[in-house]
Amino acid sequence: MISEKIKILTAGNSAIRAMFEEGNRLAALYGRDKVYDFSLGNPNFPAPDSVRQAMMDELSNEDPVLLHGYMPNVGYEDVRKAVADNLNERFGTGFQANNILMTVGAAGALNVILKTLLNPGDEVLTVSPYFLEYGNYVSNYGGRLIPVPAKADTFMLDCEAVRAAITPKTKGIILNNPNNPTGVVYGEAEIRELAAVLEERQKALGMPIYLISDEPYRELCYDGRTAPFLTKYYANTILGYSWSKSLSLPGERIGYVCVPDACEDHDLVFKAAGIANRILGFVNAPSLQQRAVARCLGDCTCNLDKYDANRRLLYGELTAMGYTCVKPQGAFYLWMKTPGEESAFVEAAKKYHILFVGGSNFNCSGYVRIAYCVSPDTIRGSLPGFSALYKEFQIER
Amino acid sequence: MISEKIKILTAGNSAIRAMFEEGNRLAALYGRDKVYDFSLGNPNFPAPDSVRQAMMDELSNEDPVLLHGYMPNVGYEDVRKAVADNLNERFGTGFQANNILMTVGAAGALNVILKTLLNPGDEVLTVSPYFLEYGNYVSNYGGRLIPVPAKADTFMLDCEAVRAAITPKTKGIILNNPNNPTGVVYGEAEIRELAAVLEERQKALGMPIYLISDEPYRELCYDGRTAPFLTKYYANTILGYSWSKSLSLPGERIGYVCVPDACEDHDLVFKAAGIANRILGFVNAPSLQQRAVARCLGDCTCNLDKYDANRRLLYGELTAMGYTCVKPQGAFYLWMKTPGEESAFVEAAKKYHILFVGGSNFNCSGYVRIAYCVSPDTIRGSLPGFSALYKEFQIER
Repeated sequence: MISEKIKILTAGNSAIRAMFEEGNRLAALYGRDKVYDFSLGNPNFPAPDSVRQAMMDELSNEDPVLLHGYMPNVGYEDVRKAVADNLNERFGTGFQANNILMTVGAAGALNVILKTLLNPGDEVLTVSPYFLEYGNYVSNYGGRLIPVPAKADTFMLDCEAVRAAITPKTKGIILNNPNNPTGVVYGEAEIRELAAVLEERQKALGMPIYLISDEPYRELCYDGRTAPFLTKYYANTILGYSWSKSLSLPGERIGYVCVPDACEDHDLVFKAAGIANRILGFVNAPSLQQRAVARCLGDCTCNLDKYDANRRLLYGELTAMGYTCVKPQGAFYLWMKTPGEESAFVEAAKKYHILFVGGSNFNCSGYVRIAYCVSPDTIRGSLPGFSALYKEFQIER
Repeated sequence: MISEKIKILTAGNSAIRAMFEEGNRLAALYGRDKVYDFSLGNPNFPAPDSVRQAMMDELSNEDPVLLHGYMPNVGYEDVRKAVADNLNERFGTGFQANNILMTVGAAGALNVILKTLLNPGDEVLTVSPYFLEYGNYVSNYGGRLIPVPAKADTFMLDCEAVRAAITPKTKGIILNNPNNPTGVVYGEAEIRELAAVLEERQKALGMPIYLISDEPYRELCYDGRTAPFLTKYYANTILGYSWSKSLSLPGERIGYVCVPDACEDHDLVFKAAGIANRILGFVNAPSLQQRAVARCLGDCTCNLDKYDANRRLLYGELTAMGYTCVKPQGAFYLWMKTPGEESAFVEAAKKYHILFVGGSNFNCSGYVRIAYCVSPDTIRGSLPGFSALYKEFQIER
């Protein structure tokens, strides 16, 4: 007698979350240090101490009625201004407070954006493989997610495939750059090409097509790469950001939506997004977290070197063993071809207490996603297992 | 080109929120102490110092990776256990961790419950006057909110009217006790009568009818009254709670859903609610707030005496002036008959810098809701204005 839609989901549930719980089970049996859990994007490096200091200072010195009280649904004005100023400084944009709406993480941001935009039956594209939760987010508002395959092997944007997938029902495309699960970073050339396709289709179809950017990994780019700041390339861009990864605060649920002035009907979209934030039950982003992140905007790359060291270690070792991997350019995921049938490989890895998530959970079988936001010891400890696993599958073949 | 449903809402927006912003505008013009803002349920009494201490202690002594990291979508196991134990102690229930799901406040809790239960076209009853946001929450999931008028003048439950409103499409009824906006508290007799009606209709129609309890004001009852704990009276009860009012933390967004074992299909409902929490984009309730409230469960009545003093002062003075008011039994709202046309009265009050929300914003015109969760000075300062306002309307009549 519950919702039919959600009842279907109870049968499956999230494989990522199931693996996270399997990790906890194995850790209880064998000890946390004997389990090599690469399943969840839960940063193992702590939040910078500036977050703790900012929170302690707010708690010590701010009037608790103001600190813990309601503020406008879009968030504290001064916090939104600080976020806008920081973006302007880093990306040469011209945002003000009323381009920024504070949210309950990027998941909250995406739900606010989709609630704001979608009518039942609308289609939203995304590049596949992709974070399967997008399907649920779009479905929440009666929309339909249309996966558009990335280019084979490189997993780069296939702009011609995007063009072909656009119909009069297309409301937008969710782009995740740097990418979960593949670790690729789309560069300026790809983004320009995508923007041109969207511009052309907007004009031809006489309707806006929104570029919905999911960018919790924005600051995590390696080898000098950067992820292009999308509002500079395409007017109808709406960004969703989270400090979950950049400040290691995934449990605290803090992020923002950015609606640039150039976005068609900015005032209406921004007002509607504030209402969406309210009526979906978020009401506002948690107040202490808002005040804290506003004071730590300069620390979003503080763990980059550690992730990069992990990336080099893991990619180097796994490719040396014989595995075929996409070399990660951003985020903290390594996307690896399975040397045999995917589910057998994922199962076999558990023998070595190695946990990762099969590619079919990202709509792309024959791969696994290895989240390397872990302690370097976890990587080092897992290597004998990875090696034995590889050999096991060579023999079986 | 945005969502049609939300576009309609942008034309109106929340009168409560608009009044809150009017209050800020007047405060900027005349000084905060010259504005008597009774519009929003934003507690003016600070959170107990135990909240600050708990947060400081967690920040000082807990591993930040655990403190700020992901936990299961339903919340920390030990926090849920602490909440369950506290309820058991206070209400003689037998809850365990897996009856409790931590949420982003009561608004988050209600959205999770409705997402879990509703199929498009389902009807949800509520007692009117009511918090208009319920209509949006129900509509989020394709349902239709059916207001059932309370008894005239007393604003008590009209169980016969509830019975008459139940159809084969009825999925449940949202009950808010103590009540916003009327300040009444339904007692044991009313709840038993309601439970009997629901039991009888469930049986006759061969389907569950859920009692959805919205109880952020649970601890705020006066004159020795208590709000009956609903799971003890009716099996298919699902509770949504928030610490917004009891610990003065509305901006921090922390609450819970309670699904008792006796609820039909408990395991399925609980699992579905966890998925709803995840896919709506909450993911989990903010982690620091979870840990803090678990340590302050004994402090939920710490401001009761102050609200009671406000209630006595305001009710005493307003009735002495000649106003007709429902005597508040709980929550922190005074429900007052307007001595003239409602909107003219609300407008006229602004001349005296007095702000409150018209009853038509709760589906009941001819009344206003006066939120007395303010400083006693605000009440005292407003009294000359209230008096002049009353006289003004006597003359006009």
